[in-house]
Amino acid sequence: MAVLTLLTDFGEQDVYVGVLKGVIAQIAPAVAVIDLTHGITDIPAASFALASAFPYFGLDTIHVAVVDPGVGSDRRAVAVQFRQGTVIAPDNGLVDRLLAEYPVLAAVHLDNPVYWLTASPSATFHGRDIFAPAAAHLAKGATLKELGTAIEPSSLVRLAERPGWYVQYIDRFGNLISNIPAGCWDNRQMILLKGQVIPAASHYGAVPVGSAIALIGSHGYLEIAVNQGSAAQYFDASVGEPLILHPLISS
Amino acid sequence: MAVLTLLTDFGEQDVYVGVLKGVIAQIAPAVAVIDLTHGITDIPAASFALASAFPYFGLDTIHVAVVDPGVGSDRRAVAVQFRQGTVIAPDNGLVDRLLAEYPVLAAVHLDNPVYWLTASPSATFHGRDIFAPAAAHLAKGATLKELGTAIEPSSLVRLAERPGWYVQYIDRFGNLISNIPAGCWDNRQMILLKGQVIPAASHYGAVPVGSAIALIGSHGYLEIAVNQGSAAQYFDASVGEPLILHPLISS
Amino acid sequence: MAVLTLLTDFGEQDVYVGVLKGVIAQIAPAVAVIDLTHGITDIPAASFALASAFPYFGLDTIHVAVVDPGVGSDRRAVAVQFRQGTVIAPDNGLVDRLLAEYPVLAAVHLDNPVYWLTASPSATFHGRDIFAPAAAHLAKGATLKELGTAIEPSSLVRLAERPGWYVQYIDRFGNLISNIPAGCWDNRQMILLKGQVIPAASHYGAVPVGSAIALIGSHGYLEIAVNQGSAAQYFDASVGEPLILHPLISS
Repeated sequence: MAVLTLLTDFGEQDVYVGVLKGVIAQIAPAVAVIDLTHGITDIPAASFALASAFPYFGLDTIHVAVVDPGVGSDRRAVAVQFRQGTVIAPDNGLVDRLLAEYPVLAAVHLDNPVYWLTASPSATFHGRDIFAPAAAHLAKGATLKELGTAIEPSSLVRLAERPGWYVQYIDRFGNLISNIPAGCWDNRQMILLKGQVIPAASHYGAVPVGSAIALIGSHGYLEIAVNQGSAAQYFDASVGEPLILHPLISS
Repeated sequence: MAVLTLLTDFGEQDVYVGVLKGVIAQIAPAVAVIDLTHGITDIPAASFALASAFPYFGLDTIHVAVVDPGVGSDRRAVAVQFRQGTVIAPDNGLVDRLLAEYPVLAAVHLDNPVYWLTASPSATFHGRDIFAPAAAHLAKGATLKELGTAIEPSSLVRLAERPGWYVQYIDRFGNLISNIPAGCWDNRQMILLKGQVIPAASHYGAVPVGSAIALIGSHGYLEIAVNQGSAAQYFDASVGEPLILHPLISS
Repeated sequence: MAVLTLLTDFGEQDVYVGVLKGVIAQIAPAVAVIDLTHGITDIPAASFALASAFPYFGLDTIHVAVVDPGVGSDRRAVAVQFRQGTVIAPDNGLVDRLLAEYPVLAAVHLDNPVYWLTASPSATFHGRDIFAPAAAHLAKGATLKELGTAIEPSSLVRLAERPGWYVQYIDRFGNLISNIPAGCWDNRQMILLKGQVIPAASHYGAVPVGSAIALIGSHGYLEIAVNQGSAAQYFDASVGEPLILHPLISS
């Protein structure tokens, strides 16, 4: 039984996610569908979230990602195959973080209407009309080639790179997840955020409740947290907030 | 494997939805349960949402809909069978939009306690005690007749009809979904909302970011949207807001 | 097919819940996963919620509960087996309400890294690295003994007991769920909240819209509600608010 994940900005209030699942169940009833999130509307944040979940799924998983403000325009709908799973998404940067981390095995433009829900898709809901049906057909055994025209991986839309260290994602607890990989930080370096030195510690509870710490978080990046609190609130910090790594002054 | 959907106003914070799924899993472990939404508390909006998801599910799907402010009173619990699926719900108008669109094959009052969770249901949680067990038994092979006494489809509670064109649903993006079917609008008619003419366009991105447009949305109705924004905020519009279709003045 | 439930404070915005499901699907693909809630951050409230869902699941269900502010500290990760299901959780009081209601058949400290996702778990996400993998292995056939060292049930962390009658849980509708069991209340006793006598009634609709009532709710406790409104708002009441049961003055 193949696994198919869903990451969208459809929220939980409307039936849009349920409709995707209805479409999938009609095409590939035996597929198991797992929700990643339906709450991220920002493309760079969604791209990070997708990449952070990706390694925890099996090799034959199909990830459907639909954060798609350009729906109905001429942005492409694509499928991108990696060794560890295939992503079905609009070609708008959503796949950027995976492209940065993993080699592409193959990519296609989802331009074969045989695998759409209808030959005349709506202008506003390609999740239902194109992405979910293509993913379900893939789960059921269609090949990538059948879904559409092969495209050059290098032609896939990338996000603008930002220089330096900064906060790249803020989670629901208010943890500030930086873009500093675990391997780029050692205990001879201080972390500064908004002029404050953040003490390093091994886990949240190593400092008093309400105090800030820096640690390597579960995403594999340096993370700034507040024990039983929100670092985002504590520091009034947003995504993009710069961080400084500074050598410790030895005595 | 039958599919069973859930549409309730239970929200995501408590364990009420999980309890429904536990009850269903114990009666019919092989059934696949799909959440439509648990966030709509308004009966007309929930009725619209149910009807808009309905056609995307298979013929043998069982839809459990529980927005039920009259729980514990003498409002009936009913099952209504259409050609494309059966709905289990309180008889309070929730099924209205489906009744308006599809002929009823059969309807019953869920008055057979054999198919309830307990012969003494609680006064406040018929989702758990009556609706979910009845649906699970139906999914597992019970017939509609076994679930209770046959009733006249014409006796099912309908919602008051509102005259004219208006906003009938607002989604999480702030899109204003009207009650104007795609077929009732052509490009020789202007759409007016709060005195403003809304330009028609084919998709969100056809107008600048922040601008309003009218288009046929994924529900099959004329929809007013703001490109990468919320039309509900832009126009300070609520459900029920009147819309005017006016012939274009030819030059 | 075993059933596994998830109760966490991870919210719906990030991919944390999806990652748990990916980890579980890779270890035990045939297990059915049911979400209880991901929205309760308070340990006593989560403990109540878990206990209120528990009886509606089958005997072989595995409940994974992760509200874990002490993650990474030396608080234990445990599995606690009851006759009607096994709970996998941090040993921080989450299991308290079940311990109060049901005898423990066996308990273990989840200290066998063979059943973790990695021998070097992160300091911040034991849901992914310890709890979910242990639960999935248990669902797949590992024995409790294999997961770790047996511990004395009496050594499990309990919550402080609060004396008297009070509001123990507030649900998303604003219903005030007391700790007064159905059996401790009869119609010769008045219920007082903030000096007001709350009239008893059989169901929400028995009083006018906007009026308060007391009734035995679906959790099996006395509950104070407002017909089509929020009792929490109406009374400006929070968890812990005292309640008084007072004998009726006979005429």
